[in-house]
Formats: sequence, structure tokens, C-alpha cells
Amino acid sequence: MKVEKMIGERFKERPSDCAVESHALMVRGGYMKQVANGIYSQMPPLKRISQKIEQIIREEMDALGGQEVSMPVVLPGSLWQESGRYDSVGSELLRFSDRNRSPMVLAMTHEEAAVQLVRDYARTYTRYPFMIYQIQTKFRDEARPRAGMIRVREFTMKDAYSFHTSQEDLERYYARCLRAYERIFARVGLPEVVAVASDSGMMGGSVSHEFMLLTPAGEDTVAVCSECGFRANVEAAECIVRSEPEQEPQPLTAVPTPHSSTIEDLCAFLQIPVEKTCKAVVYQKPDNRYVIAFVRGDLEISESKLTALLHSEIRPAEITEESGIVAGYIGPVGLPEHAVVVLDRSIQNASGLVTGANRPETHFTGFFPQRDCPGAEYYDIAKIKDGGICPHCGKPAISLSRGIEVGNIFQLGTKYSESMGMQYTDENGELKTPVMGCYGIGVGRLAASVCEVRRDAYGPVWPVSIAPWQVELCCLRSDDAAARESADALYRELQSTGVEVLYDDRPVRAGVMFSDADLFGCPVRVVVSPKTAAAGEVELSTRDKSVKTTVPRGQAAAAIQSLLQDLSAAVLQKVPPVLDGE
Amino acid sequence: MKVEKMIGERFKERPSDCAVESHALMVRGGYMKQVANGIYSQMPPLKRISQKIEQIIREEMDALGGQEVSMPVVLPGSLWQESGRYDSVGSELLRFSDRNRSPMVLAMTHEEAAVQLVRDYARTYTRYPFMIYQIQTKFRDEARPRAGMIRVREFTMKDAYSFHTSQEDLERYYARCLRAYERIFARVGLPEVVAVASDSGMMGGSVSHEFMLLTPAGEDTVAVCSECGFRANVEAAECIVRSEPEQEPQPLTAVPTPHSSTIEDLCAFLQIPVEKTCKAVVYQKPDNRYVIAFVRGDLEISESKLTALLHSEIRPAEITEESGIVAGYIGPVGLPEHAVVVLDRSIQNASGLVTGANRPETHFTGFFPQRDCPGAEYYDIAKIKDGGICPHCGKPAISLSRGIEVGNIFQLGTKYSESMGMQYTDENGELKTPVMGCYGIGVGRLAASVCEVRRDAYGPVWPVSIAPWQVELCCLRSDDAAARESADALYRELQSTGVEVLYDDRPVRAGVMFSDADLFGCPVRVVVSPKTAAAGEVELSTRDKSVKTTVPRGQAAAAIQSLLQDLSAAVLQKVPPVLDGE
Repeated sequence: MKVEKMIGERFKERPSDCAVESHALMVRGGYMKQVANGIYSQMPPLKRISQKIEQIIREEMDALGGQEVSMPVVLPGSLWQESGRYDSVGSELLRFSDRNRSPMVLAMTHEEAAVQLVRDYARTYTRYPFMIYQIQTKFRDEARPRAGMIRVREFTMKDAYSFHTSQEDLERYYARCLRAYERIFARVGLPEVVAVASDSGMMGGSVSHEFMLLTPAGEDTVAVCSECGFRANVEAAECIVRSEPEQEPQPLTAVPTPHSSTIEDLCAFLQIPVEKTCKAVVYQKPDNRYVIAFVRGDLEISESKLTALLHSEIRPAEITEESGIVAGYIGPVGLPEHAVVVLDRSIQNASGLVTGANRPETHFTGFFPQRDCPGAEYYDIAKIKDGGICPHCGKPAISLSRGIEVGNIFQLGTKYSESMGMQYTDENGELKTPVMGCYGIGVGRLAASVCEVRRDAYGPVWPVSIAPWQVELCCLRSDDAAARESADALYRELQSTGVEVLYDDRPVRAGVMFSDADLFGCPVRVVVSPKTAAAGEVELSTRDKSVKTTVPRGQAAAAIQSLLQDLSAAVLQKVPPVLDGE
Repeated sequence: MKVEKMIGERFKERPSDCAVESHALMVRGGYMKQVANGIYSQMPPLKRISQKIEQIIREEMDALGGQEVSMPVVLPGSLWQESGRYDSVGSELLRFSDRNRSPMVLAMTHEEAAVQLVRDYARTYTRYPFMIYQIQTKFRDEARPRAGMIRVREFTMKDAYSFHTSQEDLERYYARCLRAYERIFARVGLPEVVAVASDSGMMGGSVSHEFMLLTPAGEDTVAVCSECGFRANVEAAECIVRSEPEQEPQPLTAVPTPHSSTIEDLCAFLQIPVEKTCKAVVYQKPDNRYVIAFVRGDLEISESKLTALLHSEIRPAEITEESGIVAGYIGPVGLPEHAVVVLDRSIQNASGLVTGANRPETHFTGFFPQRDCPGAEYYDIAKIKDGGICPHCGKPAISLSRGIEVGNIFQLGTKYSESMGMQYTDENGELKTPVMGCYGIGVGRLAASVCEVRRDAYGPVWPVSIAPWQVELCCLRSDDAAARESADALYRELQSTGVEVLYDDRPVRAGVMFSDADLFGCPVRVVVSPKTAAAGEVELSTRDKSVKTTVPRGQAAAAIQSLLQDLSAAVLQKVPPVLDGE
């Protein structure tokens, strides 16, 4: 491929609307073009990267015995009604009607379609276990697309579905799949991706893991224990707070607290630490009913935990006058009865708290939940915090990091097979419901994630396994006959041995050519110039700057091959072995 | 791959809802599963066939200098408003709103997205010509999906778009692309596909070709001249009728024609040949306005030609009483003025015709258009008919055949570049509008088309170039140790040399195994049984029954390789050479 004829432009100015560096570089490098909010076209370099990532994923899925299939992008609403998700999933599920007014959806995940595909086939135990997968376009109508390919509305995803006759069999397979995912991330050049326990969210099921690439550009937060290595998404990690009620609790007393509708103002006014407050966060369900969550003042509500507890979507509330809720002065005692009240475990053993009195400019002091809310139940709905207690080893050694979720795997149990009537006959002729697992990776997000952590100030530093081209060949002064001849010949020579070469023979200044090459990020760069041609040499370097050398022209192809092998070996060295099935 | 573990079932009964044999076989063989009307999931065999077809297409597109990209499935309505197609295309374009109520469409073709992708890049003449392509999911909300993968709503399509600075350059490229298409069809095993002139329909532009596979299962009709080889879609072929007015035309006379509202009844009642009638066909535009088309009684209206002439969609009319139109007795003389009247050239030089008098149970005789419709214009809106006059050589040697359109190519001109403001600066610094070509192939339809014409009563006979597996290995009586050992070893041996083997070692009867193998349609079949194992042999045959032989077990792998090479060579022999660019 010649740079001369490749569509797309490269430029220096950082686009102002890019929240993360990978997005800026991929726009500046002509990798992608926005078509609508969260919807992009892929230019040739990104298309090539995506295809390489897809091939790596395909090989690992095939090694797990996966069978590649293709399910539709547009699904009938009736299929999602079978599982109940047509109604339970929010507006990120794009619903519409076809010309015959049949309800349809744009699939954002394919559990329903997968069950529909195999439920007639898998009616006897002898056909289990099996796994099907596809690499396919999906659409999720995100409210806030961001960060380029990291959070988009339309995306290419590998999604896999496994079917088993027992939880134990699912768990064995799940472990193999987790290893396959580690191999995939290592093969694309991200051996540092870690599996963390996660919340299963709208997928249902119990055990699930997210694969996190820790980087400040991430939009997820991961809790990591420095003592025992425990790792979990903050939305999934249990939040543990140790406290004991006072020996002689104070009585519940209403005190005037003018202009103290925020926790900060309240603490300043009463001169108390934030841990001595009990704050309220108000949500609404889709039916507009209010949900009021109470948590110790220094902690945050986990909306994921609360959603899972309520089995309902929630949104930040709009508090109306008619509601009887006094914003800024809400407390658990004396609330209107129409609201759903949820208490976090952080206040369960506390006493002497300050909380709202449900009257304007008034709080209670001496709030003692066990006394003042008799019979109340307490739930884990708070986010673990930096310095918090590790739910695994019990030590206060949790630190929080930002991460990009580059993959996820779920033990789904029978959520879909049961609701959709998938059954098989077991060894004893009895009807049973299979258990399922599902396994996803977003291809575009993975490409952007690699870019996010494999780059320098000038462009991406693509790992050789997914680089759009292995080698960029730069011919400086292609109007010079000797340089042109040497470069043209090397281009043909490399191509004939199967090396993927991007050839830049444009009549542009060296500065332009090199800054473009930095944006293309090919692992190996070869420079031919009138000077090197005259000396019978070429310049050879790696994009990561670890190698910069001059080799005789006659040995150039061999030296390039050898360099590519070294780069490949370095990637493969970090790939863990396959986990065997038996 | 083992048959034992492959999802999907095979069965004998022909499904009653399949209009064509390829559909029935692909359902019976476990290739596909319906998810909704015109929407299918692909099972592993069809997925593999599709991937092979895609790779052949990709190689041919790359050889044309094509650059693979990826454009979105979901496009903003605003992009289609730029070209005007948001309003001009009918309800096959699926329109909907996203969560922010922005109008969106499911793309059924990507001219707009292609222009959007490159118009910033291609601002100077030096960047031309270039071609981009993608292989991607599309959605077309067909009113009547039919024939399995042949007419679906969701499909995978290769669509390519080329950009040029002159019509001449487009034409040169178009010729190369036409040849690339011939190569693609020959490589997938359909060398008999022919290019025919076509109507450009909603794509716009002037010259276009369809690639037709002639088969009774097709839903298009192709006119072929047995004298000069002229070929065209009936919707595009000029319809020529030779007639001369009589020397002494009769006067226009109203005659009672009771119960003669059809042409058949009219001809029977008046005892006249159908060629002496002038019939009306009534349509309505989207704004409900009536369009009345008149044509000689023995000919049919081409709705494509009429649509193109009117620049408007039309639908069969609902004739109301208020319209003043007298169904069954419509004629060009004395029609209500609100209707759009279009006269076909077949009546231009005729006289003495019988046509409706626009009164119940009454016709005119002696209708002489040149006299009775003064100043009228005549257009080519009729379909050429079997035995009709060839528009190329003028001989009455046209015969009609059914065909499946397996690809199409269009010279688009500036329809999209102009409406969407794509411009470049030419050598003289002047702003110019580029001309475009576009080139499509439906992958699934092509797979089904191959099946339609490469099959026998028992299943598909896949060409080796796209067969899901090259070889099926059948182990009869896998409970026999010698047979099992021989077959297992051969399976490993073939796999290690890169042969794609489907291995059937199920404990089923030979009849079941062979009928399943017929449905898989692998080009080469190898059978190992206790008998052959004892004799130190294997049975080797081809799916097309041209070869059936026994070879020593030790030579089996080599014999299979050699057979595969012969099958490949037979396909490649029919592939025309690449047409060079210069």
C-alpha cells in the first residue's frame, strides 16, 4: 500500500473535542471519521487493525471449540419479550417498527438470538457442552458516547455463548474462557489487562468478570487490595464499614440548620466530621416512584448495586413540591410513605449521626438507626472507597484506579434458557434446563485501548501483532533516481516475502513524512534517502525507539524479517498457555 | 470439525414454506435459521461459505486498488437528506428515531456515507482516482422477502465506491471492475453468470449492469437476443414495436361493450386480436395523484421505466368513484384532467385500435392516436416481450429467461457528489465535481445462488472454492477399532497438511451419514469402514459423482490433495484474466 493513494488525512492540531489521547491520535492519523454522535466510519488503517484483532479472537475462540455463526443485527421485539428484556432494558435498547408495524430492536447483545438458534437442536444431553460465537455489528443507544471508539453507539463485538448441563461444567469452561481472554489481550499487546470481579447488571446471572486495562483514561473504577491482590469493579466490591454504637446514645433532637442543604455546609455549620452524617440520595423509578437511599456521609451510592437490589432501573430524581420530600433536609425519620427507602449497611451500627429532619432548614442530631428505625433492613449499596476495607482479606488496603473494560464474561445460569423454554432430556429421560455462559469483547474499543497505552507524544506505537502494517518504508527525495530505485526494489522484495509494507514515496519534506509515519505507528521503519542509497545502506528503526541502526542494502530484507520476529517473540512471550479442557 | 458437535440439524422432509430448492436444501442441511420474516441466523456451514466468498471478493477488490473501510449500519437521516434520498426512497428504507429523537436510517446502500467519508480528503485532483469498499451488514425493509437468502431484509453486502475526475476515467475503471466481477463469479463456481444492461433505478446515473445467473428460480427477467447476443433486464431493454397507420383510418366510434372490462373479454366480444387494443394501467403517486399509462394490449408496462420517467414512486391505484375514472373502460380520449397520462410508443404509429371510452360498458373503435391525441408525446414504458425486436440488431430474436441478480455495477455520474457538495481543485485551480461509480455484490444471495444451480436431488454440490469444508471424512462403524484408528489417523493427517476436513464419526447408520454428507455437499468424500480398514484402503469420491475410487490407505492423503488440486484447477480454468489498468 502506498501512502500516496491512501484515503484519509493526517494533521498536527489536536482536535478540541477529544476527551482522551487515543481518540485524538486516531482522528489525527486518519483512522476514523465521525458520522454521527458515537457512530464512526473506519478508515483503512483502523480497518486493518480491527481485522487482525478479530483474527486473534477467532483463533482463540476456535481453540475453545467455538463454532462461528452469524446472528442478525435487527431482531424481532417478540424475541426480547420472551426473555423479558424488551421491557426491562432501558432506552439504550433501540426499539422501532418495521414497515408492517412489527416491533423490532437493534441488538446490543445476543443471548435471546443465541437461544433461538440452538434450542431446537440441543434437546438431548449428548449435544452438550457447546459454544457458538460471532463477530458482528451491534448497536447500543448510549446516552453519552465518549472517548472515540471507547464508548460508541455502533460497534463490532465478538460475543460468545456456551451451553452446559451443569453449573460445574459451566465453571470449568468459564475458567478456560477466562484464560483464552488473557491470551487474547496478551496477543494484541496488552498483557497487563487484569480480570476483576464485576456486577452482572442487565445480563443477569451470578459470577462475572470484567477485563480491565488500568489507565487514567478509563471510565470504570477498579478496587485493588495491595495486601491480598483482590480486584473488583467498585460497583461490585462489597463495601465494609466497621462501627459500633455509642454506649450512651444521645436522644434524637431537631436542630435548626439554616443554609445547610449540602453535606459540606452542614458539617461546617455543626463542626462535625462527614462520617458523623447520614446523607440521602434520591432517585426515581421508570414509574416515577421515588427511591431514597441513605448512606454514611463520606460514602457514595453505587447505582449498580441499588439497581440490582431493586430489580429496576433508576434515574436521578426530580423532586417536586407535591412529593413532600424536602430536598437538602431529608432523613429516614418521618418521610412520606410513598417513597421506597433503602438504608446502606454503613449506618447500621452507627449512632449520634446528623441527618435531615424532613423539614426546611432543620436536621436531627443523635440519630441512632437501630433505635430510630425499628425493624429496618440494611443493604450493601455503597461504593467501596480509597483506603477502604478489603472484602477478601479484611485489611484497609483498598486503592482505586481507573480502567477501561476491554472484555467481560458472565455465568448466566438459566436466566435465558428458562425464560425462553430451552430444555433437554438428560441421561434419565428427565427434562432439564441448560445453564449458559456468555463472553464479550468489543473490537474497536480494544483497538483504541491499545492506542491509549501504547503511544508517545507523536502517535500510536502499535504492537506488531495488530499493527496496520508491519513496516513503513520511507523514501526521502523520491525524485533522486538512486533513492527511488533502492526503495522501489526493497518494497517489491518485502512484499514478495509476505511482509506488510506501507510505502511512502510522496514528494514531501522529511518532517512531514516522519510525523505521518509516527501517526501510522508501524513497528518497523525503514528510511531510504539519496545519502543512504549512495552509501549502499538503509536506516532501520523501531517505532518504540528501542532499535536504530544502519544495515547494508543487501541485508535489509533479512534484517527487517529478523526484527519483526524479535518483536513478535516479545509479544508471544507474555501470552499464558492454553488451559486444557480436561 | 466433527459433525458430532456441530450445531444444527439435518432432516429429510422438504419444508413447505420454501419457494426455491436452494432454500429448502439450506434449511434441511442446517445452514440457516429464520429469526423473523426475511431475517436469518447463519449456522457454521453457511458462515464458512460466506467467509470464503468474502475473501474471494476482497482479493479481487484489492487487485483493483480498492481500500477496505467500514461504514456504519445506522446512519443519520440528515446524511440521506443531503442527497435527497431520505424523501425519495420508499418504505424499504427503514427510518426511525434514536433516544434523542434524531432521525436515523438503517443503511441499505452507502453512497452518502462514502461521500461523507472522503469528501474532505479528496479536494485535489492528485488524489484521484480511488476506490473504497466494505463488506458489511445492510438492511432493506423488503415488502416481500422470499426464496431464503435470495431476497432477505438483512444481508451482508460488498459495496464499493470509486471516484474519478472524468467520465472517461470512470469508464476505464468500470470496465476493469466489470471484469473483476466476472472473475469473482467464476471463482465462486458460477462462470455462466452474464452481465446485462440494467435500469439504474433509485441509484441514479446512466450506464449500469446487472450480473445475472439464469435460472428458473430467479425473480428477474432477462431479454437475450439469439442473433447478436444482446442482453438486458426487461426493465431496461428498449421495447420496439413496428407499425404503420392505415391508409384510410376509420372514425373514432363509441360502441357498447357490455361485460368487457378486461382485455380478454373485450377481444372475445369484438372478435379482434389483442394487438388491436390499447389498454390502460392505472397507478398512484405517493401524493395519491393518478397516473394512467396506455400501451398496446399485448404488452406490459415496465414499472421501472415508468418510475424513472416520472421521477416518482408509483403504486397500483385504488380507483375511487370520485376520481371520475371508469375502471375497465379507460381510454386516452376524454379522461379527467387531474390524471397524469403517459402513452407508450407501441401505440404511436397504430390506428384502428379499440380503447376505453371512459363510460361504463363502452369502448371506442377506430382509435388513431396521431389524430385523436393531437400533440401527444410517446415514451418507452413497455416491457420487451418474448419474440420481440432486439434493440441492438433489430431482429425479432429476443427470448426471455428468468435470472437471479447476483451483482450490479453503476456509473453514478455526479448525482451524489454534486448534491452533497463534494468538489476538488483541478490542474488549473478550478473547482470540479468528481464522478462516481458503485459496485455491489450480496454475499448471502451469491451463496444461495450457487446452491440453486450446483445441486442434485440430495443436496448442494459446492464448488471447492467456497465449500464449507473441502473434505468430509466418514467413519462407518466407529465402534470398530481398526476403522476408528484408520479414520482418526487420516483426520489428523489431513488437518496437519491444512486440508479442511469435516469428520463424521457418529454411531449412526451409513444411510444417515451419507444423506447428511450429501447435505453438507463437500467436494471430496472419504469413507473408512471396517471392510476398507481391513483391506488397508479408503474409498474416495467426489460430490459431483465424477470420481469414485478406492486407494491404498497410505496414499489416501496424497490422493485427496491431488483431487482437490484438480477440482481447483477446473474452477480456475474458467476465470478470465485480470483487465489491466493502463
